[in-house]
Amino acid sequence: MATSCQNKKQSSSIMVSEHWTPWHQVRNETWMPTYKPDSEFSMANFPLGIVSHSDEPRERVATILGEEVIDLRILTTALDVSTLKRLFPGLGITVARLCATFSESTLNEYAELGRHVHRIVRKGLQDLFRIDTPFPEILRDNSNLQKECIFHQTQVRMLVPMQIGDYTDFYAGYHHAYHVGVMFRGPDNALQPNYTHLPVGYHGRASSIVVSGTPIKRPIGQILVDQEKKQPVTEPTRKLDFEVELGAFITKPNKMGEPVSIEDAQDYIFGYVLLNDWSARDIQSWEYVPLGPFNGKNFASTISPWVVMADALEPFRTTPIENKTEIQKYLRETQKKSVYDIELEVDITTAEGETTTIGRTNSKFLMWSFPQMIAHHTLNGCPLRSGDLLGSGTISGPGGADERGSLLEMSEGGKRNISLNGGDLRTFLKDGDTVTLRGVCGTTEAGKVGFGQCEGRIRGAVKWSSN
Amino acid sequence: MATSCQNKKQSSSIMVSEHWTPWHQVRNETWMPTYKPDSEFSMANFPLGIVSHSDEPRERVATILGEEVIDLRILTTALDVSTLKRLFPGLGITVARLCATFSESTLNEYAELGRHVHRIVRKGLQDLFRIDTPFPEILRDNSNLQKECIFHQTQVRMLVPMQIGDYTDFYAGYHHAYHVGVMFRGPDNALQPNYTHLPVGYHGRASSIVVSGTPIKRPIGQILVDQEKKQPVTEPTRKLDFEVELGAFITKPNKMGEPVSIEDAQDYIFGYVLLNDWSARDIQSWEYVPLGPFNGKNFASTISPWVVMADALEPFRTTPIENKTEIQKYLRETQKKSVYDIELEVDITTAEGETTTIGRTNSKFLMWSFPQMIAHHTLNGCPLRSGDLLGSGTISGPGGADERGSLLEMSEGGKRNISLNGGDLRTFLKDGDTVTLRGVCGTTEAGKVGFGQCEGRIRGAVKWSSN
Repeated sequence: MATSCQNKKQSSSIMVSEHWTPWHQVRNETWMPTYKPDSEFSMANFPLGIVSHSDEPRERVATILGEEVIDLRILTTALDVSTLKRLFPGLGITVARLCATFSESTLNEYAELGRHVHRIVRKGLQDLFRIDTPFPEILRDNSNLQKECIFHQTQVRMLVPMQIGDYTDFYAGYHHAYHVGVMFRGPDNALQPNYTHLPVGYHGRASSIVVSGTPIKRPIGQILVDQEKKQPVTEPTRKLDFEVELGAFITKPNKMGEPVSIEDAQDYIFGYVLLNDWSARDIQSWEYVPLGPFNGKNFASTISPWVVMADALEPFRTTPIENKTEIQKYLRETQKKSVYDIELEVDITTAEGETTTIGRTNSKFLMWSFPQMIAHHTLNGCPLRSGDLLGSGTISGPGGADERGSLLEMSEGGKRNISLNGGDLRTFLKDGDTVTLRGVCGTTEAGKVGFGQCEGRIRGAVKWSSN
Repeated sequence: MATSCQNKKQSSSIMVSEHWTPWHQVRNETWMPTYKPDSEFSMANFPLGIVSHSDEPRERVATILGEEVIDLRILTTALDVSTLKRLFPGLGITVARLCATFSESTLNEYAELGRHVHRIVRKGLQDLFRIDTPFPEILRDNSNLQKECIFHQTQVRMLVPMQIGDYTDFYAGYHHAYHVGVMFRGPDNALQPNYTHLPVGYHGRASSIVVSGTPIKRPIGQILVDQEKKQPVTEPTRKLDFEVELGAFITKPNKMGEPVSIEDAQDYIFGYVLLNDWSARDIQSWEYVPLGPFNGKNFASTISPWVVMADALEPFRTTPIENKTEIQKYLRETQKKSVYDIELEVDITTAEGETTTIGRTNSKFLMWSFPQMIAHHTLNGCPLRSGDLLGSGTISGPGGADERGSLLEMSEGGKRNISLNGGDLRTFLKDGDTVTLRGVCGTTEAGKVGFGQCEGRIRGAVKWSSN
């Protein structure tokens, strides 16, 4: 591949071959000496994030390979135009325009360049780091540049990677919707009549989306402790929960008033992150009729810092949960493998440091794909913008408590205790607990594609006098 | 007032007297020759907006007096520092910092300067234009500067005035909530148990907020036409509606995790606009269970372009609808006149040009004030940001159909026709209809404070094949 690229005319207007597949596998080997091939940030990944580090505290774009973070601003600033054109051939834009996006404090500008550019950049990075790199002089044999642009991951601070205009959370996790429905309405009426006809969703809060590692303060709220009295109290939530979700970032805007077709929807996705949509179940259950969740959700949502490019997940496509309903035309996909086979895990680590993996699920347990969510979201002409975040909704598996994506389900609304290593029990989260989501697909041989960690530790509520 | 200001030491750190009331009335007279004293943009108003005009197409901050738009970028750029300090004494910030905000393409930077600055600027503008201006040399006697910075309102283009991070729509219009509740659940269960305990709200869509004058395309959506069949169709909405609301812009952020007290909440409000939260009732009724409105709302919301400063509404405070429930401490206000007496009207103008005022209501018909909404919204630590928009929810009066703020209520869900001038009938909106909201308070003598128009014309849906 690399050789043929080099043989092409080095014009920035060359388009890559239509037969070139973005998920073409490179061998999972690199010249980078610290690399361990079982890393989730393998040669098959190259996610993007926003970092700052002590050398240059201004935010910039970076990628990660193994445990090494590569500062793309420093890297590309050090290279001349002809070198950049060899590394990233056929962009269709100037390399100056590409490189300018690496100096931004969010990935929005880079995202807007479109998936054609993202493909070429990801392949260029793979070519740069592969064991048989066709460009040894750029970085492999340039130890000065390596020292300038490569940082161990412990040396950098990760930031929220995109400026999030709007955040929409869907409810596409079929088993979650079913389990919760059974709890509230029994098995015969578990799912609402609309559930299999459209991807139900609601608008979340963009301002409270934080990056992994940010502490989460236990929210205060109105709670109906005594269901009979109908008189709420104002207290810290007693039912603080997590939700295991996959999040998708939008890459480019659609014009207001113009729906995105299901065929085009894939091109509107930039990449994916893990998403923990923290929830206060007692606040939510009192407030949510008739307009939906509000204070029970909008105090915080945590995302993993590295955006896994949509192309990196292409080899892991699989079929979603079967929907037997005859769905409307605008939601019908020709791509039947419309979801991803990503193994998801959730840990609780107690204040004492005991960690328990309490849930294992998979991102394939969705009834609606992200392209379907996009087609539905824009059916009415609603404008999406670069950096908008779509959440899948909580993803639970079909099995028992240990396959579920929230404590609400695992504890059956607080009725059943969950045992943790070290002997602790939980129904909902305690102050001092840390919740960590992880998501990985692929093998060591081909190179794992993982998301890193999405974690948050619960802090005690603010001091409060109820009356 | 002006004289005493001039006598003060001209330091930027001077604070205005605590006894100075922001809503101190100036006489409703100006030296501006075109001014008509019955204008809603009177000497008592001075709202702010973002404009562009052919002389200088870049967006900038402006105000309006009568029909004349004053470009604050051009005005303040033409003045030297000592003149600016005389005009705006006691800012507590440098005049350079103030003036920089007038060159921004949104009001966010200006809003973040805080209400102390907003007060001084509004008073400075009143002093500059009053008939007995203490600063005749700055503008009254400077016809060159007048020509440079004053434009007739027909010469400027108005833009969305703020970068809106998050948009929250409440449901505080008591009579609307009650009317709609009666339609769906009968009079005994019209209001949900939580309604009188907390200001119910939900997250809206920020990306589809447009400025008055923007055409609104009829949205396509899933509709359950045949309630028995339980099989939806995908069609242009048949029940397109408006909602008459008041919107409040947030002026400064609170820190994530830190609630805003009800005492402090007023200081978080920058100003107010009219808000038409367009709604597709048939899409909404099929989709909204269990997570609330989505595609039935997020295709468009229209706001009036001029932000009426919170201080300009101070003389029009009145009491909200009485809430007999004992509310939680964090929602109890010492300011009993917590809402505004703004007369609201809604017109429909048909494609043929016939205009009918179909509804008259008042912004005082709220059960929850904006400070209560802010205290509730942030109770759980949810961070607000400068430029966030809060909607009141639809505001209906206690009387008949002609006092209601939506066609849903006026037509009783489509059962009753509304007669228009020219003989047309409506249950919901037709293509070609223009909906115009207006809101005004005050008298010609004291100076009216109005919002201008908030209007949108309905365009036909995109071409669509259902199957």
